Amino acid sequence: MALNVKNNQAVILYSGGQDSTTCLKWAMKKFKQVRVISFDYGQRHKAELKAAETIAKRLRLRNKVIPLPFFSQITKNALTDKKIKVKTGTKGKPPSTFVDGRNMVFLTVAAIYAKQLGIPNLVTGVCQTDYSGYPDCRDAFIKSIEKTLRLAMEFPFKIHTPLMFLTKADSVRLMKKLGGLPLLKYTHTCYEGVRPACGKCPACKLRLKGFEEAGIKDPLPYAQ
Amino acid sequence: MALNVKNNQAVILYSGGQDSTTCLKWAMKKFKQVRVISFDYGQRHKAELKAAETIAKRLRLRNKVIPLPFFSQITKNALTDKKIKVKTGTKGKPPSTFVDGRNMVFLTVAAIYAKQLGIPNLVTGVCQTDYSGYPDCRDAFIKSIEKTLRLAMEFPFKIHTPLMFLTKADSVRLMKKLGGLPLLKYTHTCYEGVRPACGKCPACKLRLKGFEEAGIKDPLPYAQ
Repeated sequence: MALNVKNNQAVILYSGGQDSTTCLKWAMKKFKQVRVISFDYGQRHKAELKAAETIAKRLRLRNKVIPLPFFSQITKNALTDKKIKVKTGTKGKPPSTFVDGRNMVFLTVAAIYAKQLGIPNLVTGVCQTDYSGYPDCRDAFIKSIEKTLRLAMEFPFKIHTPLMFLTKADSVRLMKKLGGLPLLKYTHTCYEGVRPACGKCPACKLRLKGFEEAGIKDPLPYAQ
Repeated sequence: MALNVKNNQAVILYSGGQDSTTCLKWAMKKFKQVRVISFDYGQRHKAELKAAETIAKRLRLRNKVIPLPFFSQITKNALTDKKIKVKTGTKGKPPSTFVDGRNMVFLTVAAIYAKQLGIPNLVTGVCQTDYSGYPDCRDAFIKSIEKTLRLAMEFPFKIHTPLMFLTKADSVRLMKKLGGLPLLKYTHTCYEGVRPACGKCPACKLRLKGFEEAGIKDPLPYAQ
C-alpha cells in the first residue's frame, strides 16, 4: 500500500453537464493524464449519464460509472423522484432538486477510487457564485472535506475547483479559451431531461443567461 | 425542509459486532429513541449483517440496511475480496482488512439518512486505542468529518464515539455496566466468518484479549 503518488494525474467528477465538461477540459490542459468518474445515483434522467459517456468517448477517455442506489432509498428530492416537482429555492430553503450530502458522497467515493490508482488530484465543477442554495458547493465545504479525506486515508488529496469563484458567464469564457466550446453541444443541463433542451427550467435558464452575458452562442439545441 | 431537530434521538452505525453493539446499548440509555443503520458493502461474510439483524430484532429496533455495491468495484482488500488473505498491519502499513474510506462513506450516508428524519446525533463504535492502523477510526478524523457534515448539509450533526479512548477491556466493562453482556453472544467479530468463532484470527484474538483483561467471560461460542 506504499503508493507512488502520481501528482501529474487527476480524477474528474464528471456529470456530463456544462460545468464538469469545462473542468474536464481544464484538467486535460493542467494534468498529464486524467480519469473520469460518474455517479448513477438514480437521477431522473439517464440523459446525464449518456452525455458523460458520449463526451468521454469523444475525448478518448474511459468513464468509470459508480452505482449509488441508496440515494433514492433514503432521500426525497426532485432529482431522484419524479413525483416531486422541480422548484427553485427561496430564502432559507434549498431548491427541491437539492440532494442532501450528494457532493460529499461523490467526493469521498472519487477519492477512494483515486487513491487506489495513486492519484491525489480530484477536480470538481462546484461553484459558489451561482450555487443556487446548495451548501455543499461552497469553498468552505471543499476545504473541510479535503482535510477530512486526507485524515481518513492518509493520502495527500488536493481538490481542484476551477469554477468556484466564476460566474456562469466567466465559465463560458473559460471554456472558449480552452477551445472546448464545441463539446458543450453534447452536454446535458436541462432538469426536464429532454433533448433539445426545454430552455425554461431553472437549469436551462441559468445556462442560457451565462452564455448571453458572455456574448457567446450556446451550441446546445433548444426547443424554442 | 425547515426540519425540527430531534436532539433526543440518534442513529447508530451498526455492524453487528461487539463494539457497535456496546454503542447501541450506550445510545439506548442516553437517547429517547434510537435508529439502527447497517451497510452491505460486499463484506466477505454475511454473518455480520445477520448478527446485526438478529440483535436489532431482539431489541425491537428496525435495522435499515444500505447497499454500497461500489466498494468491491473500486478497492482491493481482504474484507470484500476472498482471494486476499487476512493479515495484520505492520509499521507504516495498514492491515489487509483495511477498506479505504469506509468509515467516511458510512458516516456520510448515515448523516444523510439521519437528517431526513431530523436526527442530529450519530453514534459510531470507532476506537483510537486499538485502532489497528485504521486512520479513519481516530478522533482527529471524527472531529474533521463532523465539521464537514455540518457544512455539507447545514444541519447540527454531533458524532458520538463512546469507545474512542477505551481499551478493549474497558469496553467490555462498559457493556457489563450497561447490562448488555448477554447480547454479545449474538455479535459477530471473526474475520473467518464462522460460528462458533475461530478464536485465532486477528479480530477474535483482540476480542478475547479484551475479555481476559477485564476478567469477564465472553458469552460468544468459540471453536476451541
